[in-house]
Amino acid sequence: MSDAALLSIAVDRNAPQPLFQQVYEEIRQRILAGHLQPRAQLPPTRQFAQELGLSRSTVTAAYEQLICEGYAAGQRGSGIYVTELPEDSLQTATAAPRRPAPSVRHGADRPRPFAAGIPDMRLFPYEKWAQAVARTARATPRHLILSDDVFGDGELRSAICNHLSEWRGFAATPEQIVITAGAAGAIDMVFRSLARPGNRVALEDPGYAPLRSMVPSLGLTPIWMPADRAGGANPDALRTDGNAPHLICLTPSHQFPCGGAMPLARRLDFLETARQAGSYIIEDDFDSEFRYSGRPIPAMAGLDEAGRVLYVGSFSKVFSAHVRLGYLVVPEPLVPRFRQTAERFGVGASIMPQRPLADFLKTGEFHRHIRRMRRLYADRRKHFFDLVDRHLSRYVRYTDHQAGMTVLLSFLEKWDDNEIACNAAARGLALQPASAFYARQPSPPGLLAGFTAFDVEEMTAAVQTLADVFRDYRRADTDALN
Amino acid sequence: MSDAALLSIAVDRNAPQPLFQQVYEEIRQRILAGHLQPRAQLPPTRQFAQELGLSRSTVTAAYEQLICEGYAAGQRGSGIYVTELPEDSLQTATAAPRRPAPSVRHGADRPRPFAAGIPDMRLFPYEKWAQAVARTARATPRHLILSDDVFGDGELRSAICNHLSEWRGFAATPEQIVITAGAAGAIDMVFRSLARPGNRVALEDPGYAPLRSMVPSLGLTPIWMPADRAGGANPDALRTDGNAPHLICLTPSHQFPCGGAMPLARRLDFLETARQAGSYIIEDDFDSEFRYSGRPIPAMAGLDEAGRVLYVGSFSKVFSAHVRLGYLVVPEPLVPRFRQTAERFGVGASIMPQRPLADFLKTGEFHRHIRRMRRLYADRRKHFFDLVDRHLSRYVRYTDHQAGMTVLLSFLEKWDDNEIACNAAARGLALQPASAFYARQPSPPGLLAGFTAFDVEEMTAAVQTLADVFRDYRRADTDALN
Repeated sequence: MSDAALLSIAVDRNAPQPLFQQVYEEIRQRILAGHLQPRAQLPPTRQFAQELGLSRSTVTAAYEQLICEGYAAGQRGSGIYVTELPEDSLQTATAAPRRPAPSVRHGADRPRPFAAGIPDMRLFPYEKWAQAVARTARATPRHLILSDDVFGDGELRSAICNHLSEWRGFAATPEQIVITAGAAGAIDMVFRSLARPGNRVALEDPGYAPLRSMVPSLGLTPIWMPADRAGGANPDALRTDGNAPHLICLTPSHQFPCGGAMPLARRLDFLETARQAGSYIIEDDFDSEFRYSGRPIPAMAGLDEAGRVLYVGSFSKVFSAHVRLGYLVVPEPLVPRFRQTAERFGVGASIMPQRPLADFLKTGEFHRHIRRMRRLYADRRKHFFDLVDRHLSRYVRYTDHQAGMTVLLSFLEKWDDNEIACNAAARGLALQPASAFYARQPSPPGLLAGFTAFDVEEMTAAVQTLADVFRDYRRADTDALN
Repeated sequence: MSDAALLSIAVDRNAPQPLFQQVYEEIRQRILAGHLQPRAQLPPTRQFAQELGLSRSTVTAAYEQLICEGYAAGQRGSGIYVTELPEDSLQTATAAPRRPAPSVRHGADRPRPFAAGIPDMRLFPYEKWAQAVARTARATPRHLILSDDVFGDGELRSAICNHLSEWRGFAATPEQIVITAGAAGAIDMVFRSLARPGNRVALEDPGYAPLRSMVPSLGLTPIWMPADRAGGANPDALRTDGNAPHLICLTPSHQFPCGGAMPLARRLDFLETARQAGSYIIEDDFDSEFRYSGRPIPAMAGLDEAGRVLYVGSFSKVFSAHVRLGYLVVPEPLVPRFRQTAERFGVGASIMPQRPLADFLKTGEFHRHIRRMRRLYADRRKHFFDLVDRHLSRYVRYTDHQAGMTVLLSFLEKWDDNEIACNAAARGLALQPASAFYARQPSPPGLLAGFTAFDVEEMTAAVQTLADVFRDYRRADTDALN
């Protein structure tokens, strides 16, 4: 009996994994271990949710993921069944899920359509970069392999200061710059240096999903700041209880995933709150290079006179995610503490790209490349919005924030965005459900779509495929209601 | 009153930090905040330990660290006092501890004498490496910036397979290799892929200290395998209770920090235990390239027929720690699961050094460099042992394991190794106390000394300085007894 195998499922509300993922994983293990045979029917979501004491949407999300990964199949209303897995998947409980065959064509090394926050690496100036590398190799070969400082290469740290002053409107000295393994490495370093288990960390809701699992995995307690579409995170949330958070994580230039920029009044409010409470602010400035109209919004770090803001920058969005470089700007009084962290744990960044990247910045190649990409992404954004207006206006609406590498498409109907993202994945599209970014606030259903890495032809095909996904979903939805 | 400020110290026995570190941190914060004034006397260790309900050695270790970092000063027996800190340290509770001025001369970019596990980067073939980089830049510039596969560069993964087959005696296919950000990145990836909060992880005791804090920080429960000097970790520890660990972390080629190689019988015992219990073994093969006599001991992964061993290799010990490259060899049936992890979280390794390193391996430069360093380190080891025999034989003994980059010097007396490491640090030496590696087993006091990065002149001076440290300690110890 399949139901007997499922009765023993236990979920842990204190575990860092979301509940739906625990349910998904438990069922998957039972399928792989052979306790749930092919063609066995999974219990109806309503009944199973009651048995487990969980919400129905949790069970639905678990089922969707099983369907998405090929472990189960079926339609809403007509029952979900365990699929036949290839023989070798069953030999071990650790085998891979089957992936649905993509229906949108793309090369093996190309990102799937709508993949978010990815530069178009076909347009990278490889030759110019190779020249910068070759210059370093000739002039100072030891700088390709050896770092003189635990914070990273001195010339790169100087070049970043110039970049920040010209592009982000604030002054920092090279001593304040730490080169890290991407923005994630920078955020990790702040947590290691400034937070201790039990500390409270304020996170945007909705917000960047990996932070949500990172914070409890370090023994920190998340508290939630509702972020609205217009102005980003709301500082009022920090005043509702007396106990101020130790760290406040913000995306003020371009709220992720909604897209709005935080108004000056709120920025000042956060800074004053942090100053009074002795909290620190992490300013994650993840894609501020891409603003398509008006003047760039200076970084919040530039307003910080009390040394409360830790600015996090990334080279993944304009340069290459595969080189894994980011940086952190540390307020001067905190520098010794961060040096201690760096000496104890290392900073995780490879020294090898650092001196060539300094060269790339100093010769202006880096900024020529940003400007070129910004023009291109502006065109792609316009084309994408035209396509959405033409093919998807019956299903979604969006706000044009004139910035960034992604757009949040909000559904006009109360449809299940997990299910639609899953259906889209089955056709090779990489859209993320809006609900994945929400923690406590009710999630208006929608999809996060990246538009930067795809040319006109690719995007046209992708939007048409997405329109098919919506059309099929609406048809099934209407059928289910009748 | 200083005592009043200290009465409110609270320690958390469930926190991942050691108790002594919590006490240290609490006192440090009070000094920086001005609650403990300069020249205030810290309570005697015995009295303070009773008040806090802690062991006296915990309080002593906390005091030692404060002394070591310049927050306190004094002598055993005559009382410990808060030192005068420079004015600017007191402005913020996050200021740096003062570091004692080194009394052994060394350049700013040189490791401190006895620093463990560090290659001598003065002897790195920079020109050859620059040539390998330049060849990649000319031939395939895109491979300096873009990865074709989430597991890393294909040519490097192939080259690693050849290396493993020739140097470590086991066969793997490139599909099984994941390029990671150092060995730490590889271990982190195993935890993310195979363990879930609440799982038990068996660790060597004594063992690699960062693992001890990493395991609980991921919600995993450590269990301890006593490791002896002769044969490394003992598999009997896993049979004393019924509940097998999910992961078993081992250093079979060269137990860290004791230095012994695990005999074949124990290796087979671990493999069989893992097979029966469904556990996985992490084989951390951190410095096996350096064996100075006899035949190299093949990796444990070569004995694994059941797909239970995850082999972790590093380029930090022979190549450069600053390039941050390591790798993981994943048993074939687990490859899809690790691909999922890599796609979700990334692998953290920079693509940039990968194709040049493949070139370096294929042209034989890499192995020429290993052989050169092995001859050099063999000579340095001999010189180091001669110096120890001549200058330190009244204080320490050691076992010559004919391998590795470090030696554990065991004290002949029951002296406090924290205190002696601290005194040595005050004279610029980077020795680690043996007690830092022990979790549950009683720690025989000693010091871990690295010998690879220092030439004859540097090592001679360093051993003489260390002899002075011991002489002064013995004198103070004798005085205290009289």
